[in-house]
Amino acid sequence: MNADDIKGFFAERDQLAMADYLELDYYLECIGDIEVALAHFCSEQSTAQWSRIGIDEDFRDLHAAKVLSWELIGELQQLSYPVDQAAEGAIHACRVTIAHPHRNFGPKLPNLMTAVCGEGTYFTPGVPLVKLLDIRFPASYLAAFEGPKFGIDGIREMLGAYNRPIFFGVVKPNIGLKPEHFADIAYQSWLGGLDIAKDDEMLADVPWSSMARRSELLGKARLEAEALTGQKKVYLANITDEVDRMIEQHDIAVKNGANALLINALPVGLSAVRMLSRHAKVPLIGHFPFIAAFTRLEKFGVHTRVITKLQRLAGLDAIIMPGFGSRMMTSEEEVLSNVNECLCDMGHIKRSLPVPGGSDSALTLENVYRKVGSVDFGFVPGRGIFGHPQGPKAGAASIRQAWEAIEQHIPIDTYAQTHPELKAMVEK
Amino acid sequence: MNADDIKGFFAERDQLAMADYLELDYYLECIGDIEVALAHFCSEQSTAQWSRIGIDEDFRDLHAAKVLSWELIGELQQLSYPVDQAAEGAIHACRVTIAHPHRNFGPKLPNLMTAVCGEGTYFTPGVPLVKLLDIRFPASYLAAFEGPKFGIDGIREMLGAYNRPIFFGVVKPNIGLKPEHFADIAYQSWLGGLDIAKDDEMLADVPWSSMARRSELLGKARLEAEALTGQKKVYLANITDEVDRMIEQHDIAVKNGANALLINALPVGLSAVRMLSRHAKVPLIGHFPFIAAFTRLEKFGVHTRVITKLQRLAGLDAIIMPGFGSRMMTSEEEVLSNVNECLCDMGHIKRSLPVPGGSDSALTLENVYRKVGSVDFGFVPGRGIFGHPQGPKAGAASIRQAWEAIEQHIPIDTYAQTHPELKAMVEK
Repeated sequence: MNADDIKGFFAERDQLAMADYLELDYYLECIGDIEVALAHFCSEQSTAQWSRIGIDEDFRDLHAAKVLSWELIGELQQLSYPVDQAAEGAIHACRVTIAHPHRNFGPKLPNLMTAVCGEGTYFTPGVPLVKLLDIRFPASYLAAFEGPKFGIDGIREMLGAYNRPIFFGVVKPNIGLKPEHFADIAYQSWLGGLDIAKDDEMLADVPWSSMARRSELLGKARLEAEALTGQKKVYLANITDEVDRMIEQHDIAVKNGANALLINALPVGLSAVRMLSRHAKVPLIGHFPFIAAFTRLEKFGVHTRVITKLQRLAGLDAIIMPGFGSRMMTSEEEVLSNVNECLCDMGHIKRSLPVPGGSDSALTLENVYRKVGSVDFGFVPGRGIFGHPQGPKAGAASIRQAWEAIEQHIPIDTYAQTHPELKAMVEK
Repeated sequence: MNADDIKGFFAERDQLAMADYLELDYYLECIGDIEVALAHFCSEQSTAQWSRIGIDEDFRDLHAAKVLSWELIGELQQLSYPVDQAAEGAIHACRVTIAHPHRNFGPKLPNLMTAVCGEGTYFTPGVPLVKLLDIRFPASYLAAFEGPKFGIDGIREMLGAYNRPIFFGVVKPNIGLKPEHFADIAYQSWLGGLDIAKDDEMLADVPWSSMARRSELLGKARLEAEALTGQKKVYLANITDEVDRMIEQHDIAVKNGANALLINALPVGLSAVRMLSRHAKVPLIGHFPFIAAFTRLEKFGVHTRVITKLQRLAGLDAIIMPGFGSRMMTSEEEVLSNVNECLCDMGHIKRSLPVPGGSDSALTLENVYRKVGSVDFGFVPGRGIFGHPQGPKAGAASIRQAWEAIEQHIPIDTYAQTHPELKAMVEK
């Protein structure tokens, strides 16, 4: 590209009709001249060749991605992670904000992903390391998305649960239980005070625990638990399956009494989530398998906040995400950023319930609550409930007792003295 | 886990009915005792809690993933890439082969991904860095998949093109052209000798170039080019879209004369590809956006060969992949491994056409051919045809001339002396 060509990929914000553009933030490590690399980066993700040979035309006006601003983070002695590449020159770490015209692809998640984290993004000459840090959508783009049907408020109304976190529990053993035994321990956990008994993300429709049979038994157990406790309960059934079976799985599960559905968002694809959301009669809860494979490293891939934002846009009413605690290998700042993406203003798109999870129990609830800073979150222990030494009913009770202690500003150790289920966890 | 617990996650191959298991190879960097970390790694991706509290049962026999073998690569002073994690102890790089029981999830791509590259894989305590290197499927598992409907042989029959590579061209300008102009230059490229004129992976169904209009014009242009040249031609239409529009887009495009369809496999999701493949009346060609985000780094994520294998299993008749040449930042060994995954024996699953691409032109054809080592590949220039100084017809002709030179064992520079289209590329 010559100097004139390069200029075609830079713009000032006030030169552009920003309602026609997404704003993208990227971290880049680029080799050689920075502005040349940035121009190529924009070109590759939009108008790679902007005119026909021999024709005087320029598609960049309408269709080019353009650099709005960039800042140099620093010069590096080597790439932060080694990459098999051949460019030569000084290496710089930069942060760039790009305006990308959404007319190139429209309000469609697969085409959006292709544009902002596709071949252009990851195969720009001289830009071996890239992390997509954030996307901002103009209202004109958001208008085409329905977002969550229920959202936090819908889930709270369904449960009649206000001014407190929503208590989930992952039924364990996660793999291998007969549906009858699965229903039995879920039932016990509801009696102990759980709001939502959930399938593990790995347990879906299998011959030894079919969705039809499991949802039938859990649906009945749920009604019994509701009758006995006088409280609404939720069975969260995992309908992750081949895309062409998801609607059918939804219908079977809901008919049988599952009243929320779990979906592994990236394994089925965000677009399949959007499809399911349009059909859904009950809240859809997303789980996070596969996301770590492209988000864990600081300087390559895609930031989790982008994926959280897209999951909300796709219509997930609650988003289970790696939470606090060292097991989840996610910084506090990153978890809070994802919690915020569920809760922040996004035009007409409802708020999703953030569910930061990982090795939780009665002992971690206060920490999660303090860090989130409000009651608007879901809490999702697994072994912390179903591995309780006194069984799942006691496990669920220990969680509710931990919350009572927090509400009453009583130290958990003190409250445990008069609450044996909590005490068993404190002593464990 | 105690020593006995750990033993439950190790097995010898001859102790297991291997038809019930997938074999998984992982690269790991683990912290602390290696066998403890490997047991946790297996536990987290299968039976995280293998019995109910107070019940004498053990789900590991049927449902646990088990280490078949592992080798120490070496001790490391620090993790190869920094990760926010808290485990302490010696760091070791290992390679492990695991038997994972497919009864846990069945022959379903989203559930397979959840098991082998999901939460368990990436959130095992003490295992911050993981790369899934390979998957091997027993025949009993493959039996549930249809694979490609056409495959290489089907594509060759359709085109009447044998004993040579298949010549694709990405119509450029990729974004912004009116359908009329798009059809015109595709037509010229067919006359010049191209087999397949293709939409860019970023160009799908947009108001300024709707699939209905584009496929109508390209379908007509294709028939004219076939009449004039006496050769079969293909218009490869990109129907990447929201999952619930893909079938409709397929039907519109095929009715109008598109006779192969492009799909961005990861952005729509592998399961959506499988769904589409069952419906497809024409070959499906996969493109690779997003894959680099979790495959580029040597020691984290998923290896591209796994994704190539899954794309073939999902039913893609041809797989466009990062090819040779430094722009694609992929080692020759990795490209060849992906080419091999398309072509190797996979039971009843047909062979896919590998299409290693990236900045190709008449000048790179011989290199690609020599490296692949056979004629069973697709060659996919973009600007190398549509940026040819004499226009797209000459661009396509230059590719065919380069192939003639190779077939006749004539150096390209010599052949160019009597072939002006090739000469223009050599001199460019």
